Amino acid sequence: MNNIEIPIDRLTAELEELSRLSDAPAPAVTRVLYTKADLQARRFLKQLCLEAGLHVREDAIGNFFARWPGTDESLPAVGTGSHTDAIPHSGMYDGTVGVLGGLEALRALKASGFLPRRSIELLMFTSEEPTRFGIGCVGSRGLSGAITSDKLANLRDSEGQRLDDVRRGAGFSGDLATVVLPGDHYSAFVELHIEQGPILERENLPIGVVTAIAAPAALVVKLEGEGGHAGAVLMPVRKDALCAAAEIVLAVEAAARGTGSPDAVATTGVCNVHPGAINSVPSQVELRIDVRDISLAARDASVAAIRQSIAEVSTRRGVKALVETLSVDPPATMAPTVVTAIESACRRLALPFKSMVSRAYHDSLFMAHVFPTGMIFIPCRGGVSHRPDEYASPAAIEKGVKVLAEALRILAE
Amino acid sequence: MNNIEIPIDRLTAELEELSRLSDAPAPAVTRVLYTKADLQARRFLKQLCLEAGLHVREDAIGNFFARWPGTDESLPAVGTGSHTDAIPHSGMYDGTVGVLGGLEALRALKASGFLPRRSIELLMFTSEEPTRFGIGCVGSRGLSGAITSDKLANLRDSEGQRLDDVRRGAGFSGDLATVVLPGDHYSAFVELHIEQGPILERENLPIGVVTAIAAPAALVVKLEGEGGHAGAVLMPVRKDALCAAAEIVLAVEAAARGTGSPDAVATTGVCNVHPGAINSVPSQVELRIDVRDISLAARDASVAAIRQSIAEVSTRRGVKALVETLSVDPPATMAPTVVTAIESACRRLALPFKSMVSRAYHDSLFMAHVFPTGMIFIPCRGGVSHRPDEYASPAAIEKGVKVLAEALRILAE
Repeated sequence: MNNIEIPIDRLTAELEELSRLSDAPAPAVTRVLYTKADLQARRFLKQLCLEAGLHVREDAIGNFFARWPGTDESLPAVGTGSHTDAIPHSGMYDGTVGVLGGLEALRALKASGFLPRRSIELLMFTSEEPTRFGIGCVGSRGLSGAITSDKLANLRDSEGQRLDDVRRGAGFSGDLATVVLPGDHYSAFVELHIEQGPILERENLPIGVVTAIAAPAALVVKLEGEGGHAGAVLMPVRKDALCAAAEIVLAVEAAARGTGSPDAVATTGVCNVHPGAINSVPSQVELRIDVRDISLAARDASVAAIRQSIAEVSTRRGVKALVETLSVDPPATMAPTVVTAIESACRRLALPFKSMVSRAYHDSLFMAHVFPTGMIFIPCRGGVSHRPDEYASPAAIEKGVKVLAEALRILAE
Repeated sequence: MNNIEIPIDRLTAELEELSRLSDAPAPAVTRVLYTKADLQARRFLKQLCLEAGLHVREDAIGNFFARWPGTDESLPAVGTGSHTDAIPHSGMYDGTVGVLGGLEALRALKASGFLPRRSIELLMFTSEEPTRFGIGCVGSRGLSGAITSDKLANLRDSEGQRLDDVRRGAGFSGDLATVVLPGDHYSAFVELHIEQGPILERENLPIGVVTAIAAPAALVVKLEGEGGHAGAVLMPVRKDALCAAAEIVLAVEAAARGTGSPDAVATTGVCNVHPGAINSVPSQVELRIDVRDISLAARDASVAAIRQSIAEVSTRRGVKALVETLSVDPPATMAPTVVTAIESACRRLALPFKSMVSRAYHDSLFMAHVFPTGMIFIPCRGGVSHRPDEYASPAAIEKGVKVLAEALRILAE
């Protein structure tokens, strides 16, 4: 068995090329599900996979599979992959490192002369980001059966369009009921991803081996107060929806800080104000809130505290509040078999690593509910992600891809 | 002296015709400075004034004057008028009632056989609304000398065009230095306007006699914190711009409530969040804040309290704050001579009235700094304004025009 060599310049060039398939000017990346940029990225990936001699297929929702058949095709395959969609004005490494890096791992294994017993499959999941349909991991939810095909079909974007109609318009027309994978499809799934946090960089470690993934609960709060002229409506009679929203934003922050759990985070990332004029009292506000913890109980306690604050604030201020749950997903534990394979790969390559928790969610969160799953983290500069200045060095990516390739070899042997 | 008769059907028809000179489908009105609709409205008004035998002139910025010469032209004139521009998607009574109603008052006085000693002048002010150049009362600021001709010339619209260029394109080419009126041009100025608040309707009163006009101070606050992934960035290291903004929104509210002044209002009407994604910590927020009071000292105390809160919050949270002042205009007190004339007019007509404060600003705010000024309010349905469903009944308008005509007679005798 030969050593694995990663042609990092080629991979860097491919990451650069993918980053230009974007609806935002470089270095920012905007690539939203089923937009032109998303479809261009899909074509780019497909072309690379065909050139690599892989067998490609797309499912009814656009999950993309590129298969390297093993010597025993009757066995469950080993999967790897991530996503290529990007929230507005974000960076070029989130997700893409796991897709193009995954492809590079397969090419490198092939080049090394390795013949896998199990087939190895590269995945590109549809819409890991929640930008278009309000919930994240649309593709992996579908694959893992965490969402029914009926619910999938009826997801609506902000313009009220149904996912079922939009995906047909984008050229994905199969039966959505066929998206879910059989439970024995994969014997293991491994995702390579940038850490999106500062720990590996701070501790000068090239590899993080993920042991658990925190899961978000996502809420939408629609507040309806009373508008009017900012000069004419006196303070005692106001029902200002933005003042109510401000109290809720602070209650969200306090809920996470108040749990005592070091892993608790809670964020109000969206605050849309209507009518949004300097001389009008805000009549309506929509907030979107994200709450996470490694511990399901601690996270649910944060959500309960936030709901109680919303009820209290809205009653006291005479502002109507409608709270919708967008998603409440359970956290996931990584499979010991996959964790062990990743650790063995690090040892073979003499790369130091640390066990860590993922506070960001990933498609692996959903894959883990059905398949033995693990994740490999690499450091990113300053822990920055979801921003145009997101950066992972070629050297860091190269080490991650090497570990991935080695882990795939162990899992597919 | 004969009684004044108002042909309300003609006035209603003229208001309707003016409302159709709009860039929005009826009943909404959009009429922005120097657009085609604005220029059409100006031609319509000019034609009516010529038909009424008035002497018309326009100044270099488009303020329009229609003069009924008095028997002693050497005396300062009496002025009345308002504006015909309309913010996007607003209604058909704001401003227009004071312009076409003012014209009707002059026609009715003529028809009654009255011969004024002082000349009476109808004004249509250029751009009372801040839509195009960001500040309101462009024309009355110019007339009253509250803005220099140089600053006027260099106001820029959202496309970066200078007012000086745009007004020339619209056909107004004189020297901007000639816009300011001599201090003895008017002995009195009276503006008829819908209340834009609910008080007259609630108290079933046909007339409000304005004693003072509150003036806004307008601030823009740009907050810059640190973004990042909503899952990965732990609470203790966050510099969340929206959490800082939330504290400021509540400080704005508290500043107005805390002054002890019953007329103090403070509003955060705009809150724009960047990047505005549920799974991103907000990195930047822009707030727009409007602060008003009848008392300049009380208002300035509110502004100072708000600025102090912004400084405190931004320092404590490590979020940068840049505060810009958009405008700070002093409030105005109405002239006792004009207030008395309006009250006498109400008594002659046996119409009940109440003294009140205008919490919305008007061109009279600027006229009052130079000329003895008063305002007549009439009720509007539900206190609603700046909306397509803005409404004042023909009967309400008729009473307002009668009081205006009678007050002009008293002031011009």
